[in-house]
Amino acid sequence: MSSPTTQTEDIAFALTRLCPVPGELAPEEVGALVEEIARFCREVVAPHRLEADRQGATFRDGAVQCPPAYRAAYSAWREGGWQSLCAGAAHGGQELPFALWAALKELLATADMAFSLCPTLTAGAVECLERFASEEQASRLLPPLVSGAWNGTMNLTEPQAGSDLGAIRTRAEPLGDGRYALHGQKIFITYGENDLAENTLHLVLARLPDASPGSRGISLFACPKILPDGSRNPVRCGGIEHKLGIHASPTCTMYFEGAVGEMIGEAHRGLPAMFAMMNNARLQVGIEGVAAGARALELAEAYAAGREQGGRPIARHPDVARMLAEMRATTLMGRFLALEAAVCADRGDEQRLALLTPIVKAWCTDRGVEAANLGVQVHGGMGFIEEMGAAQVLRDSRIAPIYEGTNGIQALDLVSRKLGRDQGAGMRELIAEAREADARLVPAAGELERATSRMCTASPEEASASAAAYLEAAGWVLGSARLARAAALDARYAPLADFAMARLLPRALARCEEAAAPEAVLALLV
Amino acid sequence: MSSPTTQTEDIAFALTRLCPVPGELAPEEVGALVEEIARFCREVVAPHRLEADRQGATFRDGAVQCPPAYRAAYSAWREGGWQSLCAGAAHGGQELPFALWAALKELLATADMAFSLCPTLTAGAVECLERFASEEQASRLLPPLVSGAWNGTMNLTEPQAGSDLGAIRTRAEPLGDGRYALHGQKIFITYGENDLAENTLHLVLARLPDASPGSRGISLFACPKILPDGSRNPVRCGGIEHKLGIHASPTCTMYFEGAVGEMIGEAHRGLPAMFAMMNNARLQVGIEGVAAGARALELAEAYAAGREQGGRPIARHPDVARMLAEMRATTLMGRFLALEAAVCADRGDEQRLALLTPIVKAWCTDRGVEAANLGVQVHGGMGFIEEMGAAQVLRDSRIAPIYEGTNGIQALDLVSRKLGRDQGAGMRELIAEAREADARLVPAAGELERATSRMCTASPEEASASAAAYLEAAGWVLGSARLARAAALDARYAPLADFAMARLLPRALARCEEAAAPEAVLALLV
Repeated sequence: MSSPTTQTEDIAFALTRLCPVPGELAPEEVGALVEEIARFCREVVAPHRLEADRQGATFRDGAVQCPPAYRAAYSAWREGGWQSLCAGAAHGGQELPFALWAALKELLATADMAFSLCPTLTAGAVECLERFASEEQASRLLPPLVSGAWNGTMNLTEPQAGSDLGAIRTRAEPLGDGRYALHGQKIFITYGENDLAENTLHLVLARLPDASPGSRGISLFACPKILPDGSRNPVRCGGIEHKLGIHASPTCTMYFEGAVGEMIGEAHRGLPAMFAMMNNARLQVGIEGVAAGARALELAEAYAAGREQGGRPIARHPDVARMLAEMRATTLMGRFLALEAAVCADRGDEQRLALLTPIVKAWCTDRGVEAANLGVQVHGGMGFIEEMGAAQVLRDSRIAPIYEGTNGIQALDLVSRKLGRDQGAGMRELIAEAREADARLVPAAGELERATSRMCTASPEEASASAAAYLEAAGWVLGSARLARAAALDARYAPLADFAMARLLPRALARCEEAAAPEAVLALLV
Repeated sequence: MSSPTTQTEDIAFALTRLCPVPGELAPEEVGALVEEIARFCREVVAPHRLEADRQGATFRDGAVQCPPAYRAAYSAWREGGWQSLCAGAAHGGQELPFALWAALKELLATADMAFSLCPTLTAGAVECLERFASEEQASRLLPPLVSGAWNGTMNLTEPQAGSDLGAIRTRAEPLGDGRYALHGQKIFITYGENDLAENTLHLVLARLPDASPGSRGISLFACPKILPDGSRNPVRCGGIEHKLGIHASPTCTMYFEGAVGEMIGEAHRGLPAMFAMMNNARLQVGIEGVAAGARALELAEAYAAGREQGGRPIARHPDVARMLAEMRATTLMGRFLALEAAVCADRGDEQRLALLTPIVKAWCTDRGVEAANLGVQVHGGMGFIEEMGAAQVLRDSRIAPIYEGTNGIQALDLVSRKLGRDQGAGMRELIAEAREADARLVPAAGELERATSRMCTASPEEASASAAAYLEAAGWVLGSARLARAAALDARYAPLADFAMARLLPRALARCEEAAAPEAVLALLV
């Protein structure tokens, strides 16, 4: 038993029928583009994922060496013009909808999650500069990022400042000529140092001398690895982390020792600027969860089709079929949710995008880890052997619930900021649509609606105690609704939708019941 | 916020009050013994777990090198007489109850899961020989195993024979003198080759020349690495696996190239002999899940108490408190279930032991992976960094749902063999007790009872499609019942029991609902 539809078919279906991408592209053009992206990822990137993981990124004398195969793959990435897919035409971009970048991100991360992070971070830097840099800065800094000649990084976290960015200490001292000297230490900087791109542009959160403490005193700076005169800016990599997964992606500690930078946007407005582009970044991390599911499923389906026990392929054993179906259903739900959110961004539907973003980020990455975990299980003993690849998917997938705001932070964002701004009206609209998508969703939608009302009137501590359960319930209901709508549009999705309604949706009820009891958590804090 | 009770207190509480260990030991003696075991594990074994994982077992020229620190630890293990804890006095054992070995196993695996596997496999070999070897064989082979001078291994799996042991091909040719020459390849042999013990006794499943095909034609043989005359038996290690976790435990491919062995038990009765000792082995793997939870919790509690964000330790953030509480509650439930099963073995309550064994094996190991996963999450970005140890717990924990019969096999065992033999009567008894333990368990117990009836009348395919969901539901209900009884006996468990009733037990209802829809899985196989 293998999937009745392929990953590229599912993506094209979503972008042309389930939540059509706005603009001038004809459905056939969307389909052809998705196919072209898939071919690039399959032929250029995927072949190296196992070897690159084994080799890992290495660090010596301040320099980072990425797996050798990544250099050719990155050149091909650059030459293919993929980085420019949805950047503005003014700086060399193709101005395609963001939803196509989302499709690219899923296929790229399915091929090799560690490789995909370099282009992802660059895309984030491009978006940031497009929105907050002056015209002069944009004309100077964007073209090499959009072409992929340079990579971009995000320098936010410091040892004492993780989820709490208000605690940032990195300083920016005015040099008098409009430029600044940056001093401080940043950790967990993805591709902060690398040998793939010609130059690296660091976007750095730091404090001006007159800054007030806390989150209102943080500004944003752009700081290149190599200065325009060809000299090396004093920003150096102090080492890379020894991590559970994404071994080939260097996670750098960066020391800014008077490195010269320029301010992006307004003074003391660095944190809002960062958060303004967080929807995009968080969606992409959510998509990494979808990609983990897709890759895990690909491996598990192939193994289960070929492995015979008791006279039949294990894929035909009901308990294995159950695991494959769960992987397939949750991956599809996540894909549909994530692509719809990307389409919301293209349509400028900020309200729906704001609601879907934390759900996509947290729900899809939690499901990604679960799918990777099931994928290991389908392989039996071979799942534990690194050469098979299933273990790598689990290791790689595990970072996505953590970075770009932990999933706990996403849940708080959903219940406090996103529900709070319209007292749950936007969520009730999504729930009403779910109810209409399939009658079988009515009980779970009803419970989710009640939970929404409770969340809107809960104290901050109560909301915090129940936020994660609430978010998960929302993901099951909204994901199931999209799968039901897909089944209504294309009968090939119907058996999986039936499976999801009967076997996965009960989890929404359980999570709503959990969310209804915040006091059971708060009692432990007394 | 840290646990109100410690791991050793919980174990002693279980073995003296919740499910008292039978025999002559006074409660204070049980407590003192648990303390002594805990001290050994903490002082001798735990200090090496991170370094041993980093070094891993290595293979060169047919020889396996375990992490150097393991040699001293193994010597201390041997000198302490720990291996003999519950072996028979006739061969040097202390004849203490098996439940104390279960306590030892949990504490040892919490200290270092990879190290714990060598003694675990030896204990399995001891039990096997105690039950199936002739008196002459036992007097010759048991003393060095009971003392820990030798280690024991289980050679079951072959490349084509995993869950389906009937497909075994290894041959045993009679040599005419009562001995046999073994020919074949075995894979996934834990500590199959090592430099810890003086000698290794392999227990090997193989076929006699006149054997019928399938599972009825398999016999059991004992085959030492070094023969009594000091020469090397032709059984060699062909390599070790590169695994996701338990890096320090060598997982060997073994080639039997005419290695000399002797038959244990009756010809063609090897598989029943193996299965006869499976309860013990499966319980111990279940306990590895409990140990993973315990270790993950220890790390996460320490990190959450010391890490401040937003002006307070993250342990005081409700969403983090929720994760810690879930880890603590599921670990306690698993501990109580596993120790009760061990006490059932000591009491000779075969019916209850048979029912609890697959639940302990599958439910506790799934919860162990979940707890390890939550433990990583509590650490935020640091959870992904190997030096912290949380990632190692996740990697190590992941094998337990796979080996000694995958959790899917456990679920099938529960619904087909264990429910089947008394039409669910034993399970109904457990459910009735759960209902009496706490009124809040009544709805979930009712659903589990209905699910039990459905399972008893389901077709084999239906039962297989719903077995995993059914087993998980049973674990939640029976585990919650034990936590509720603990709370009734000792008020320190009450807040956690309240948490479990409100926030975890809803999962039992969801799983029962899933189990009620086998057709949604079977439709995918049509």
